[in-house]
Amino acid sequence: MEPRSIALVGVSRHTGDGTNVLENLLHYGYPGKLYPVNPNTSEILGVKTYPTVKDIPVKIDLAVIYAQRFLVPQLIKQCTEKGIKAIAVIAQGFSDADEEGDALQREMSRIALEGGARIVGPNSFGVANGFLNLSTAFVLFDIDRIPIATIAQSGMLFAGGPRVKFLGKGIDIGNACDIGFEEALGYFGDDPDIKVIALYVESIRDGKRFLRIAGQVSAKKPIIALKGGRTRQGATAVLSHTGSIAGKDEIYAAAFHQSGVIFAEDFADLEDLVTTFWLLPLATVSKLGIITITMAGGVMATDACARHGLELAFLSPQTRRRIARYLPPWLGVGNPVDIGIAPFTEVGTSGLFREAVEALLSDPQVDALLLIIPSILFLPRTLDLISTLTEAVRSYPDKPVATWLYGPDEQAAAEFKGKGLVLYPTIERAIRALIHLSNYSEFRNRAGR
Amino acid sequence: MEPRSIALVGVSRHTGDGTNVLENLLHYGYPGKLYPVNPNTSEILGVKTYPTVKDIPVKIDLAVIYAQRFLVPQLIKQCTEKGIKAIAVIAQGFSDADEEGDALQREMSRIALEGGARIVGPNSFGVANGFLNLSTAFVLFDIDRIPIATIAQSGMLFAGGPRVKFLGKGIDIGNACDIGFEEALGYFGDDPDIKVIALYVESIRDGKRFLRIAGQVSAKKPIIALKGGRTRQGATAVLSHTGSIAGKDEIYAAAFHQSGVIFAEDFADLEDLVTTFWLLPLATVSKLGIITITMAGGVMATDACARHGLELAFLSPQTRRRIARYLPPWLGVGNPVDIGIAPFTEVGTSGLFREAVEALLSDPQVDALLLIIPSILFLPRTLDLISTLTEAVRSYPDKPVATWLYGPDEQAAAEFKGKGLVLYPTIERAIRALIHLSNYSEFRNRAGR
Repeated sequence: MEPRSIALVGVSRHTGDGTNVLENLLHYGYPGKLYPVNPNTSEILGVKTYPTVKDIPVKIDLAVIYAQRFLVPQLIKQCTEKGIKAIAVIAQGFSDADEEGDALQREMSRIALEGGARIVGPNSFGVANGFLNLSTAFVLFDIDRIPIATIAQSGMLFAGGPRVKFLGKGIDIGNACDIGFEEALGYFGDDPDIKVIALYVESIRDGKRFLRIAGQVSAKKPIIALKGGRTRQGATAVLSHTGSIAGKDEIYAAAFHQSGVIFAEDFADLEDLVTTFWLLPLATVSKLGIITITMAGGVMATDACARHGLELAFLSPQTRRRIARYLPPWLGVGNPVDIGIAPFTEVGTSGLFREAVEALLSDPQVDALLLIIPSILFLPRTLDLISTLTEAVRSYPDKPVATWLYGPDEQAAAEFKGKGLVLYPTIERAIRALIHLSNYSEFRNRAGR
Repeated sequence: MEPRSIALVGVSRHTGDGTNVLENLLHYGYPGKLYPVNPNTSEILGVKTYPTVKDIPVKIDLAVIYAQRFLVPQLIKQCTEKGIKAIAVIAQGFSDADEEGDALQREMSRIALEGGARIVGPNSFGVANGFLNLSTAFVLFDIDRIPIATIAQSGMLFAGGPRVKFLGKGIDIGNACDIGFEEALGYFGDDPDIKVIALYVESIRDGKRFLRIAGQVSAKKPIIALKGGRTRQGATAVLSHTGSIAGKDEIYAAAFHQSGVIFAEDFADLEDLVTTFWLLPLATVSKLGIITITMAGGVMATDACARHGLELAFLSPQTRRRIARYLPPWLGVGNPVDIGIAPFTEVGTSGLFREAVEALLSDPQVDALLLIIPSILFLPRTLDLISTLTEAVRSYPDKPVATWLYGPDEQAAAEFKGKGLVLYPTIERAIRALIHLSNYSEFRNRAGR
């Protein structure tokens, strides 16, 4: 799947608003050859167009079809006659729509099968690949060379979130008339560029096959799934979206669990978990250390641990002594380690955080660390703290460190990006992410790798 | 509580890092008079200092004490002898620390009581008031003229969050040796500047009194509470934080419910609910309309409604016809209204969103609206959409509209601020906020106002 020549069938002459796929591909800097097909013009954006795909004088690796639905079967016929083996159908109005659409989808599938071509879609954004500067979607997305692959029964995940991009690489299976989760999972499971796989699932056609493939892939890399249609009402909405049957939520939950697939509760949770598995080391976490500048945060973190069954580490005497020597005698060192007094100690906020982080991360009692740090208006202090913490954490690459930054953090959060500290939107989310990390690490240990 | 002359007792000469309260007050532009007290110097930052509070030649409305704990009782004695009636004690190491601290706290309380002074604290940030450019905290916070008051048994809420500030006005009751939730609630309940009250609660001293006052205040304005120490382990952490007993979670839940206090699940939820009650109209919401650019979002919203017991509106035929005329014949208009095809319609994305928003908001079947909109890389389109939606929503001020913006939204989210659309971090959070809004509206109706 490294297409060097792509036919864009039915690409529009309308440009300038981010919805023209040819314009988008030029913007990404796709290095292969592009062959727009449009019978009503001879060029678009300076690129020569062809009346039909059969008029293109070279071999085509991938055809992408944007046309009206009733044209799609005959366009696929032309593609197979041209010898094209890979087709993405972006067009909508098939089994997602009405009986006529359903018939059209069956017809196009039959033509492709007879012609030996595989189809992604219809009702899809097609495929994206940040390593190849390629996306077939009609929306300009943020693609990048990151080890995250997305397989989605919807284009929603292609957009990514405010905290993490999901492309990496992506396949929007849409109505999945041919390529489904199973094929896409197997593909990304073997892809050495990819470390984490994110799914948006509405329905799975062949449960047994999915389970088998997902189990094999989970033993190599984490799969995180967001599920739509978990209620009866949601399942009805699924029917009008991708024309598929959502099935019972409990069955999916059991199947995901058995095959090691991690359930994301919502879009933000998917962001958290993808970031966690991308950036934190795998580790079995049974005892957590917490360092906090606000004991209210320490209290809430303790609550969250108790609620989710994660124990607080009993810190070793050396660790407690190392921190205590900076504190007034009346302030004990517990876990959470409360360093709210840090600005008034001889080492200051950054200095005391560094001491505490190093003490806890080198303590064998501590499997993982939660940091609760403030983003305050006096930005130089926040930035100093961030660089100090980043440095301290880097020396202990085997222990996961989760961070909750509170306060008006827009500037500071931007400073965090790519600095090796993983931020979570709430304490609860941080704790849950560490538990998922730990559970998956145990799954991998059981899977023997 | 509009102090015009403030004594800053024990303010440090150390400046330049955002921890000097005098420097911070000059930065905020506090318009009253400041009298720093420090026996070791004659001026700080160009402001004349006094050896003791008794050397200040004018009447003092508020004294704030930053000194070491063992000095605090005698400093309070000097304050009462000077005739000062309001004192905030920032110093730590009292009932939050050890027996000695506990004894010191009892002593200072006794001295204040005898001298007829009221105390906020100790172990506190004191008070903040964005309407007066005033904060007694030793951290520079973001205070503003917004109708949000915070009462917290911790300074954590003073920091605010990335999406909303909590000051407005604030009282950090700290160890609450005198002023507690009850006094502070009554005060902000009567304050016409304040529309929403946010609490961080670890423990309440006098449950019956709290219930009575909270019930009275809730009947006038919403109170939203974040509770720390909800588990046995969290309650132990509370003891070392504010030296108080957290009590049983179920009792708080029942008491809050009975008095109309709204329970926030975590810091982000508190942000959501404060924003909701600040910016959205009160309304009983039994039927929701949903407009979405991605049907995956529509599916997840349907799931969230089903899970939380919110019904989807059955749109009137006029509404459906009004939207249908822009859509291809095979695309039905349901609820969620799926307008993923908007970029390819004659009116475009913004145009179709406007039509759909106006159709649903004018439909008597629809009590409230959820918008699911994309933040895409082609920013001009996103900004155009935002201004279109803002305008459309403004014409229906009585119906709450919640928005989930997905995608890499940093720039776009910044554009939303203050524009009258309320953003939520997830679909689930948006739905839950609408339900809280509706429940509180019903509570207010029952309370007869």
